[in-house]
Amino acid sequence: MADVNMPLLVTGSIGIDTVKTPHGARERCLGGSSVYFSMAASFFSPVRFVGAMGDDCPFDLAEVFKGRNIDLRGLEIRRGSKTLAWHGTYHENMNERTTDHIELGVLLEAPPKVPDVFRDSRFVFLANTAPALQIELLEQVDKPLFVAADTMNLYINGYLDDLRKLLGRIDCLIVNDEEARLLAGHSNLIRDAEAILAMGPKIVIIKKGESGSLMCSADGRKFVLPAYPASEVCDPTGAGDSFAGGFMGYLAQKGKTDFQTLKTAVACGTVVASFTIADFSLAGLTAIVRKDIDTRLQTLREFTCF
Amino acid sequence: MADVNMPLLVTGSIGIDTVKTPHGARERCLGGSSVYFSMAASFFSPVRFVGAMGDDCPFDLAEVFKGRNIDLRGLEIRRGSKTLAWHGTYHENMNERTTDHIELGVLLEAPPKVPDVFRDSRFVFLANTAPALQIELLEQVDKPLFVAADTMNLYINGYLDDLRKLLGRIDCLIVNDEEARLLAGHSNLIRDAEAILAMGPKIVIIKKGESGSLMCSADGRKFVLPAYPASEVCDPTGAGDSFAGGFMGYLAQKGKTDFQTLKTAVACGTVVASFTIADFSLAGLTAIVRKDIDTRLQTLREFTCF
Repeated sequence: MADVNMPLLVTGSIGIDTVKTPHGARERCLGGSSVYFSMAASFFSPVRFVGAMGDDCPFDLAEVFKGRNIDLRGLEIRRGSKTLAWHGTYHENMNERTTDHIELGVLLEAPPKVPDVFRDSRFVFLANTAPALQIELLEQVDKPLFVAADTMNLYINGYLDDLRKLLGRIDCLIVNDEEARLLAGHSNLIRDAEAILAMGPKIVIIKKGESGSLMCSADGRKFVLPAYPASEVCDPTGAGDSFAGGFMGYLAQKGKTDFQTLKTAVACGTVVASFTIADFSLAGLTAIVRKDIDTRLQTLREFTCF
Repeated sequence: MADVNMPLLVTGSIGIDTVKTPHGARERCLGGSSVYFSMAASFFSPVRFVGAMGDDCPFDLAEVFKGRNIDLRGLEIRRGSKTLAWHGTYHENMNERTTDHIELGVLLEAPPKVPDVFRDSRFVFLANTAPALQIELLEQVDKPLFVAADTMNLYINGYLDDLRKLLGRIDCLIVNDEEARLLAGHSNLIRDAEAILAMGPKIVIIKKGESGSLMCSADGRKFVLPAYPASEVCDPTGAGDSFAGGFMGYLAQKGKTDFQTLKTAVACGTVVASFTIADFSLAGLTAIVRKDIDTRLQTLREFTCF
């Protein structure tokens, strides 16, 4: 399949994470949805980055992303503002986490602007934020071909009207199983998926942590994929955004969204996320090259085909 | 792949089940591990049935199994004894259940004898019972080619020495994720699988309910398969034994146990279980023919391959 590399845009957060897991702890390391997404997607396709941070951020993203095709013209470094800071603890089973402390900082201010040079983006990922802001960001893109978004419990509970408006305007919702249940209210994920599809998107992907993911389409197609069977999970932070990055990065690379391509894209997201969780912060992703992803993709194929 | 149909033996229970689920309730319907197993396996291969019930049992197994190749010469109907009776309630998420009442009846007596005509069985499934009894039953088979067994929390907690002896004598342990964690003590299923393999069996299969199953081999091979994505789960009773039946039935049909055959066997078990849970008691299995299984097997392939 020839590569097309259609322009891929991500809007999301930049964070300073302090993380404790049963395997260790890291203080003030780089995180945030747009950071994980961009790093993950850049293995597949160039990325256009939109996000804001304060001038207190100790990380130079240009340095962090050096050698990767990530266009930082959408990065805003705001004077006097504070960067998102998150402290979290993962419990023994690694599926649950507690937020010990969060300082939203710039996320409480106006969202970053999508630069005019990014208006012609064809693939768009709107990472987790208030759905009204996701819509505002999306309106700054002229004619996207495929828009995916993430959301969370906070917005399902408190901003459902906005979220429903968003769902009417995107092609794909990516949520975890708890969020899907909360949004759709069924006790069965297939029914949850069908209920969410009825709210607008053509595709819904439900992530189930170590149990993998389920993708359903409005035209009745389904795809189920286990997580990559990893014996070591070090730090799950960023797994969801890495999944989205691998998924959207592969789609943008191929420039199409037929179900077969979407299936392989889900597998790419799964594999990239498996590298993310093997180490703290971005270390799992900075340690690999595209070839490592392709090798593990082939292994996942062998693990799952019969 | 040519069919061989090596003789397949099952030892297990016959039960009278009273079940409540969010979808309804059924009183005193036929259940039990060897019943579900035999029904499921008989789609693939002839089955030799070993199990005991009391003379209070309202079901005629010869009638229930009519038209299926299930040899009931190992069925013992004991005068004055009581058949296993189980009352259970499934909760909203269908993954948890409460035993409201259980009367072990014949299960408290001596185990059924394996008839001499069954001694040459090559494939053997030892359904859930005290591990010492599983060993006793296994000793009545001359030279089995592939022995699989099930166990449960009760025996992991209370009869670990016996269980370890059993694990040294079987080829494959089939357990659910909770049991695997309890037996191996890790927080990661791959590590649990590896720890169980170190206890003796060449193959371990860990069932994860609606999240599918994981198979690992002592020589380092892995297979992960999601559950069949079903929008309706009516009654999960018998899912595990149906899985084992489809799995062992396919292996006995093919007469071999290389990893590729084991993978397809896991898929067969998955598909048969998906029919079991779609209705109460055995109704999901009596409603189908082999062709339905093969069709769903092909669908599962499409759902999972990328």
